[in-house]
Amino acid sequence: LEGAKPDDQITQPLAFLNAADALKGVNRATKIGDGSRRENSAEHSWHIMLYAWVLAEHSHAPIDMAKVLQMLLLHDIVEIDAGDVPIHTGLTAEQLAEIEAREEAAAKRLFGLLPDAQAAAFRHIWQEFEAAETNEAIYAKAVDRVQPVLLNLLTGGGSWIDYDVTLEQLDTRVGQKVTRGAPAVWTYVHNRVAPWFAENARD
Amino acid sequence: LEGAKPDDQITQPLAFLNAADALKGVNRATKIGDGSRRENSAEHSWHIMLYAWVLAEHSHAPIDMAKVLQMLLLHDIVEIDAGDVPIHTGLTAEQLAEIEAREEAAAKRLFGLLPDAQAAAFRHIWQEFEAAETNEAIYAKAVDRVQPVLLNLLTGGGSWIDYDVTLEQLDTRVGQKVTRGAPAVWTYVHNRVAPWFAENARD
Ligand SMILES: [Ca+2]
Repeated sequence: LEGAKPDDQITQPLAFLNAADALKGVNRATKIGDGSRRENSAEHSWHIMLYAWVLAEHSHAPIDMAKVLQMLLLHDIVEIDAGDVPIHTGLTAEQLAEIEAREEAAAKRLFGLLPDAQAAAFRHIWQEFEAAETNEAIYAKAVDRVQPVLLNLLTGGGSWIDYDVTLEQLDTRVGQKVTRGAPAVWTYVHNRVAPWFAENARD
Repeated sequence: LEGAKPDDQITQPLAFLNAADALKGVNRATKIGDGSRRENSAEHSWHIMLYAWVLAEHSHAPIDMAKVLQMLLLHDIVEIDAGDVPIHTGLTAEQLAEIEAREEAAAKRLFGLLPDAQAAAFRHIWQEFEAAETNEAIYAKAVDRVQPVLLNLLTGGGSWIDYDVTLEQLDTRVGQKVTRGAPAVWTYVHNRVAPWFAENARD
């Protein structure tokens, strides 16, 4: 056909999109807002993109929203092979290194389903997110971390109960990263969750 | 606090984000790729944003990808109040008008949870998507329509069996809109689904 693209410019993206569908089957530690079941990583990715957009004015620095949305859109896809690691799991340096290696291999396999130029672009954006150095990555990490806090509050404690979390641990594991990317949001959320911890958490 | 935003610039967005969480409980006619359960509208929204990005070179016209992603991010939120209407349901003009009225009311209530400026921006982008006139909306509609076709193919027919769909009906109800936004994609997908219809569909 005059002007038609080679078929593999459609075959390969569709193979990737079919593989990416499996993210809907990766369950997280957090429950959805009505408490009925665990959240999966695909709907989580959708939700934090919405977070990124509506909280943008609270970003620590000016950001390119298209870049932030693209990061959040693909940041969890490696979990299809590597699984989700709940933030409140205590991990040794060895276990962390093992997870990183699994995620690197997953990025290679999954993004590698795309045509070469797209595969390289996706791996680059994923690595930028993981490195948490650019303004966009720092903000994207902040919304990724703050969303489960709101879900836990909606569901009466959620994974804070499962993992026996204190407010001090939450401030360290979650609050520091949220503060880095969206400082006013953590000030606000900390104050909102403090009463739950005062009432429910161990000392 | 010096430089702090008024609290309602965080309270209202978070109230909206908590309400939006309910999109994870809106089930669609299509099953996810492994056939284990119906897809919900939140994970569907994530998936079609990925479609939009990796198929962008096949768009009918140049597009602003940030705008397309924003449209797809919020286009289904009205379903929280109005429900999802499967594409292969036969509807009267009266029923269609009723659904449109329900969706308008839903947009008013849900986007109305946001601060005024954001609420107006969200309603505007949602209306632009619904109107299907701009290059971005035409392309966004195309990826929204083509994704369930791929899922049905992955799950051995899916909603085509439930709704007794023919290839001619698929070309009309789905193919026309996909062709409008991403012509080469429909040419390709039509050829890929034709054997299923030849084997399984009624005449
Ligand atoms: Ca994660």
